[in-house]
Amino acid sequence: MSEMIYFEDLELGNMKEFGPLTVSRDEIIAFATEFDPQPFHLSDEGAAQTHFGSLASSGWHTTALSMKMMVEGWSRNTDAKPAGLGAIGVDDLRWLQPVRPGDTLRGTSEVIAKKESRSRPEMGVITSQVTLYNQRDEPVMMMKPIVMFRKRPV
Amino acid sequence: MSEMIYFEDLELGNMKEFGPLTVSRDEIIAFATEFDPQPFHLSDEGAAQTHFGSLASSGWHTTALSMKMMVEGWSRNTDAKPAGLGAIGVDDLRWLQPVRPGDTLRGTSEVIAKKESRSRPEMGVITSQVTLYNQRDEPVMMMKPIVMFRKRPV
Repeated sequence: MSEMIYFEDLELGNMKEFGPLTVSRDEIIAFATEFDPQPFHLSDEGAAQTHFGSLASSGWHTTALSMKMMVEGWSRNTDAKPAGLGAIGVDDLRWLQPVRPGDTLRGTSEVIAKKESRSRPEMGVITSQVTLYNQRDEPVMMMKPIVMFRKRPV
Repeated sequence: MSEMIYFEDLELGNMKEFGPLTVSRDEIIAFATEFDPQPFHLSDEGAAQTHFGSLASSGWHTTALSMKMMVEGWSRNTDAKPAGLGAIGVDDLRWLQPVRPGDTLRGTSEVIAKKESRSRPEMGVITSQVTLYNQRDEPVMMMKPIVMFRKRPV
């Protein structure tokens, strides 16, 4: 039986790690071709004349890869799954360094705020500080997702 | 010859429209399968027991679709392309309504702040308020991208 991680179980300062995941040139180009076909996300040639210098992933690819790693992390943990009900939004998303072909990403997520819901007593809202690093331990992205969590059934 | 839209050309209150784009069930499931495989993004059955009720797109799919529409809008405008140099980040991203299979999305982008760069005199920073609507004119997403723009060459 898998336990659930409810709103009450999450405490300020709780830290989770996620990843790693290596992103390939083909994946960067495929995502950009479909969703963000700007020259610096499509080829080294297109990036050469910009401050990117060479191919870099779309920032929206980077955020999607963070989500992928986090969901995979929950799936691997068969003992306890978060009772997440979807995200309200994200504050302070920052792309700090380009993500390049072959980069291996990993991340941390720390609970930085929790709040009861006034309108919906069965849930609460958790804000986390998510930081994504590359294989040189450089932070490449930060963001503060704001996620609804189910409360423990009474 | 295509003109460029430089930092100096963008004024507070400038408004652009982008889209429309219709998102299919297959696209919602394909994105979620790759990047955000939570039950409510994968099937109606998986969403039935949640507040989503039926299949809804990953929020990261919705942001990626906004980017897609914006880049396609720039490509269609052969007269003038924005001299954008990539985004620093996004403030105040909020997912306001679920995006459903068959929804037709469109959006607006308004310049709400502009700032010279101290460290890099050849560029400036533009903040926009982006709002995404569905076919019922309900706002489904809002965000404030912060984007570097090249200044007009002297």
